[in-house]
Amino acid sequence: MNSIAYLGPPGSYSEQAAKDWIKDGDLIPVTSIPAVADLVSQGKADQGVIPIENSIEGGVTFTLDLLIQSSELSICGELIIPIHHALMARSEVQISEIQQVLSHPQSLGQCRQFLLNEMPHASLVASLSNSKAVQDMMDSDLKTAAISSERAADLYGAKVLKYRVEDVPNNETRFIVLSHSDHQRTGNDKTSICFEFGDDAPGILSESLMEFASRDINLAKIESRPNKKSLGRYVFLADIEGHRSDIHVSDALKALRQKVTMMKILGSYPSQMK
Amino acid sequence: MNSIAYLGPPGSYSEQAAKDWIKDGDLIPVTSIPAVADLVSQGKADQGVIPIENSIEGGVTFTLDLLIQSSELSICGELIIPIHHALMARSEVQISEIQQVLSHPQSLGQCRQFLLNEMPHASLVASLSNSKAVQDMMDSDLKTAAISSERAADLYGAKVLKYRVEDVPNNETRFIVLSHSDHQRTGNDKTSICFEFGDDAPGILSESLMEFASRDINLAKIESRPNKKSLGRYVFLADIEGHRSDIHVSDALKALRQKVTMMKILGSYPSQMK
Repeated sequence: MNSIAYLGPPGSYSEQAAKDWIKDGDLIPVTSIPAVADLVSQGKADQGVIPIENSIEGGVTFTLDLLIQSSELSICGELIIPIHHALMARSEVQISEIQQVLSHPQSLGQCRQFLLNEMPHASLVASLSNSKAVQDMMDSDLKTAAISSERAADLYGAKVLKYRVEDVPNNETRFIVLSHSDHQRTGNDKTSICFEFGDDAPGILSESLMEFASRDINLAKIESRPNKKSLGRYVFLADIEGHRSDIHVSDALKALRQKVTMMKILGSYPSQMK
Repeated sequence: MNSIAYLGPPGSYSEQAAKDWIKDGDLIPVTSIPAVADLVSQGKADQGVIPIENSIEGGVTFTLDLLIQSSELSICGELIIPIHHALMARSEVQISEIQQVLSHPQSLGQCRQFLLNEMPHASLVASLSNSKAVQDMMDSDLKTAAISSERAADLYGAKVLKYRVEDVPNNETRFIVLSHSDHQRTGNDKTSICFEFGDDAPGILSESLMEFASRDINLAKIESRPNKKSLGRYVFLADIEGHRSDIHVSDALKALRQKVTMMKILGSYPSQMK
């Protein structure tokens, strides 16, 4: 039987992604993104599911840094999950009576307009996760609400006061699946890499990206992260279309390797992007 | 007299940046990054100071999105401030006796190894800001500590238990100064821009960056943010060396404008990068 570790607790959007990924198997909730990778590295889970990017908030920096700095695991798949937040309380209560709202700061940010319009006097309280917000709310008084997923309301017995309180439609999160090896070629694939340059000579990034462009390989994404050694020095993460075993991709990666001081192929896997 | 709005409360690293920026003038603390921009837009402050990038955590997404999406202000300067966190409590107490630690999740993240090594059993509690963490800690019991700046300890009368508890040396934050116009040419300048493409044809980014490379203009930084309309579509932010009034820079920007669907010059200002 397959086992899959995910960023918990139960009720999180990562749990939903993990359930979508394996229809049948053990789901193991863990408390942090690095802990998901550790469980897979140690062989205590076959695969791990973590968020990498949200359509509003952007890259999940913990995940990006894990891929760059430490993990020797490969990406073997991706999933895209729509994110809908719900406002919930211990039991039925008027929204206007709510005095404080608990949630992860990112979720509070995604519902900022709703909170300003509907409950301008409520104080906003940060939680370490959306599920923790629901648990704390359930232990609190009637005038405390939480913002979390519908599933968290079910799990913890909370009463949903309003569905879909997020400000922006098309709120989606992309998750990746980590494993000991990546995915075989399917013909509709994506390859994730990261790389760093020794110095920032004019044009080195542009020249490097030209290795893909000149071979007609589309760059689905490029992102920079600090190299953590000094301000102004970056590691780049890129998603390119194609599988690392495709000849033109493999040639481009070989050419790129000549220009960089560090390069890691994070994995090739079926693309789920529209 | 000059007035400058900053991301407060007093004791924040932004306050320190604001003090370094104007030696003499009114400092106005406000509660959010958009509020800093609003105060300057409305003429209630001459300038505003907000964080844009940390050497460990990367870009401050609130600031990047503000520059892209809404602000019509210009960047007229930058400052780089070293970040040192201190562990503090209401009064002298053994670190091993601390049961909970309050701070902004980003600061807790920057002290993760220290917390694991020195106080593995303490629970970590999220605050909306480092200064709020100190205020809440001062209202709490003796076994609660906060992680914040030394200056916050002074301001709120907390006792520092340990200085420099951050895991990684070279922790620095870059701040920008917003104003109604940018800075005149000094000869050691930087220009910040953002731009978006209509479709992601292979090579469009690489070709665009070539406009700088071919003119020997160094790209100090490039970063992508979601365009917030759909997953997988991005706005790019770039810092290039030179002033927008330099002919080669002005030519490159003109050429870039031909390739993009949106481009904003965020400002030219003296570079503080080493």
